[in-house]
Amino acid sequence: MARAAETIGWQQHRLARVALCWLVEPGHRPLGGMVRELGPVEVLRRLYTGAVPGRVSSAAAARLAAGDPVQRALQLAREGERLGCRVVVPEDDEWPVQVEDLVRIGRDADPRADPHTDPPILFWARGGRRIDEAAHRAVAVVGARAATDYGTHVTAELAFGLADRGWTVISGGAYGVDAAAHRGALAASGPTVAVQACGLDISYPMANAGLLERIGQDGLLLSEWPPGAGAQRHRFLIRNRVIAALSRGTVVVEASARSGTRNTARRARELGRIVLAVPGPITSGMSVGTNLMIRQDEARLVSTAAEVIEEVGRIGDDLAPIPQGVRTARDDLDAVSTTVLDAVPLRRAATVEEIAVAAGVSAQQVRRTVPLLSMLGFIEDTGVGYRLRPEQKPSGSAGEQPNIRG
Amino acid sequence: MARAAETIGWQQHRLARVALCWLVEPGHRPLGGMVRELGPVEVLRRLYTGAVPGRVSSAAAARLAAGDPVQRALQLAREGERLGCRVVVPEDDEWPVQVEDLVRIGRDADPRADPHTDPPILFWARGGRRIDEAAHRAVAVVGARAATDYGTHVTAELAFGLADRGWTVISGGAYGVDAAAHRGALAASGPTVAVQACGLDISYPMANAGLLERIGQDGLLLSEWPPGAGAQRHRFLIRNRVIAALSRGTVVVEASARSGTRNTARRARELGRIVLAVPGPITSGMSVGTNLMIRQDEARLVSTAAEVIEEVGRIGDDLAPIPQGVRTARDDLDAVSTTVLDAVPLRRAATVEEIAVAAGVSAQQVRRTVPLLSMLGFIEDTGVGYRLRPEQKPSGSAGEQPNIRG
Repeated sequence: MARAAETIGWQQHRLARVALCWLVEPGHRPLGGMVRELGPVEVLRRLYTGAVPGRVSSAAAARLAAGDPVQRALQLAREGERLGCRVVVPEDDEWPVQVEDLVRIGRDADPRADPHTDPPILFWARGGRRIDEAAHRAVAVVGARAATDYGTHVTAELAFGLADRGWTVISGGAYGVDAAAHRGALAASGPTVAVQACGLDISYPMANAGLLERIGQDGLLLSEWPPGAGAQRHRFLIRNRVIAALSRGTVVVEASARSGTRNTARRARELGRIVLAVPGPITSGMSVGTNLMIRQDEARLVSTAAEVIEEVGRIGDDLAPIPQGVRTARDDLDAVSTTVLDAVPLRRAATVEEIAVAAGVSAQQVRRTVPLLSMLGFIEDTGVGYRLRPEQKPSGSAGEQPNIRG
Repeated sequence: MARAAETIGWQQHRLARVALCWLVEPGHRPLGGMVRELGPVEVLRRLYTGAVPGRVSSAAAARLAAGDPVQRALQLAREGERLGCRVVVPEDDEWPVQVEDLVRIGRDADPRADPHTDPPILFWARGGRRIDEAAHRAVAVVGARAATDYGTHVTAELAFGLADRGWTVISGGAYGVDAAAHRGALAASGPTVAVQACGLDISYPMANAGLLERIGQDGLLLSEWPPGAGAQRHRFLIRNRVIAALSRGTVVVEASARSGTRNTARRARELGRIVLAVPGPITSGMSVGTNLMIRQDEARLVSTAAEVIEEVGRIGDDLAPIPQGVRTARDDLDAVSTTVLDAVPLRRAATVEEIAVAAGVSAQQVRRTVPLLSMLGFIEDTGVGYRLRPEQKPSGSAGEQPNIRG
């Protein structure tokens, strides 16, 4: 009996959260503060009686007048169940604790600033994976909807590389970069999480319906909005904080000058998460935002999945290799040998003395160096002097290190 | 008579520098130190008698044995005159004093490190401009010889913009980025300086002969090497320090992973000059070096001539504009108005109460907001409620700020 009573209490708790999250748009700081202090059941009770501060009552007023929140929550719970969605609350084992970092944002905020920055009150989830496990080692990959071929190509490569190394790719399920990120991760059979800004019964955008369906099967679909909630513009901004908070870092691939991706990146920064950006051609409008973030030290430049992991992985682990050009035998020569080699002519043979004059070193140094250069195949001894073997042509520019072929 | 004697002394001085700069490859630190201490005539005298330290005598030995340096200097001076070249020495008014900063490099250097980092002993110059004036407000623009179309396009734009704003573009006269930099500056009728790694009688590379000729007419050709000296590989590395030292900053446009451009950039950094790099597609081998320099904080990202000037110009002057997207009327709405607007349906009219429920705000807030939204043309009053005007479609993604069109 005690057990049944507990269960009822627990279900009340969960139902109260569903009701609250329907009454007030997610992330509402004043409401979140009350829930942390009093618990969801008590907050809901006070909302019925009007015993709540003005900011909370005015946020809830319109929907409170439109129907009974508990009745509505029961309906939503049934509807969610029918759709194969579960409600996950902070008391559940699979709750991703890192989203609680969102309390840091706006703690000292201007009261006129966006009030929707609080941690989620719940998640609607669809998919076989636990949220905490899926988001344990996770990177957000976000960017422009109007991505270029470059952007979608680079995103898919990056996401594949991350998933292939066991990292979860989190994004927003939108066109362009978001879709390429999910697809890249799925192609590597890696976990991917789409955080939606509408009810999980809605495929938004419609053209991604097939992709979202696959994420619901092989990955995880998350939303703070109940079934039936539409994809309204302001919800994307509210949602972005969750993408940032779930991940250890956010990678931006392509963003226009005033792209909202920078909003996700700002949230990540406010949360102390790593912010990374992929550079692009300065001639592309879709790289203006990313190049600017790098220029203004809002993001660190990354080019590969290994570099992303180096940044978001634990310190000391996961160091990315530094790109290296092709080493040639020439690279291993010391300075004198290189200077001597540069002084050996191609078309005729030169004596040791002639080479010394051309190189500006002593004849003795030339005599010491030529055997090695011959042995390495750079020069040949003609009997009357030395000349370059035909494949060793001189060259050089302001731009290129002479001993390297660009 | 005293005047004539002075003139003879002076010409001796100049001739001694020509002789020294022929005897030993430019930038030789031990030789440079002696010249600063004793003057070029005395150093030359001691070289004849062998009364110099081992490092200097061994550097000069081969050419000293090949001919009399004073005779050779007289020949070179005559040859230079015939070619329209002048010899510029530190005592001349047009000497660019900033190259003296090179004494900083390698002051504490490992004795086994490259000894050729000292300030120039002289310049061979061709062109009507004074060196000091041409290099007064100068930026180096360097990069890959094997530049892509992107690289040459971006370089030419950048150089045009710099020259158009009165900045001198300095480069190395090579293929690819170097040539595009000179061409861009010439197209803006701006001064440009090519610092060569061979005698000014030699057009290197040959394919740039026409360009170099034009630089010699409208700009300035400089070299530390006397007429007849060939373009040997190691000379490009020696020359790069001059490009870095003459300029207030160096911009790298395209560099492969192990490009020698990074050598010029390193010299610039050692000199306390600004180092900048243009990012490029991470899919391009020719942008690996530049992207890496940015990633490793060796260079700051730049996209425009204005940004370059902001970096190299005086503090407070020359601030580049921050890229802005197109502002729309929507951008000027406050948070409540945006939320209300997002809740107004497109296909049917909604009452104030319905909008309030959808938006999660009070009916009173909706009533206060709708007149402005109507006035701005976002919504229309149908008599039974409000609906969106057809051009206001909802949208949004993880990547895009809802109120902006990418």
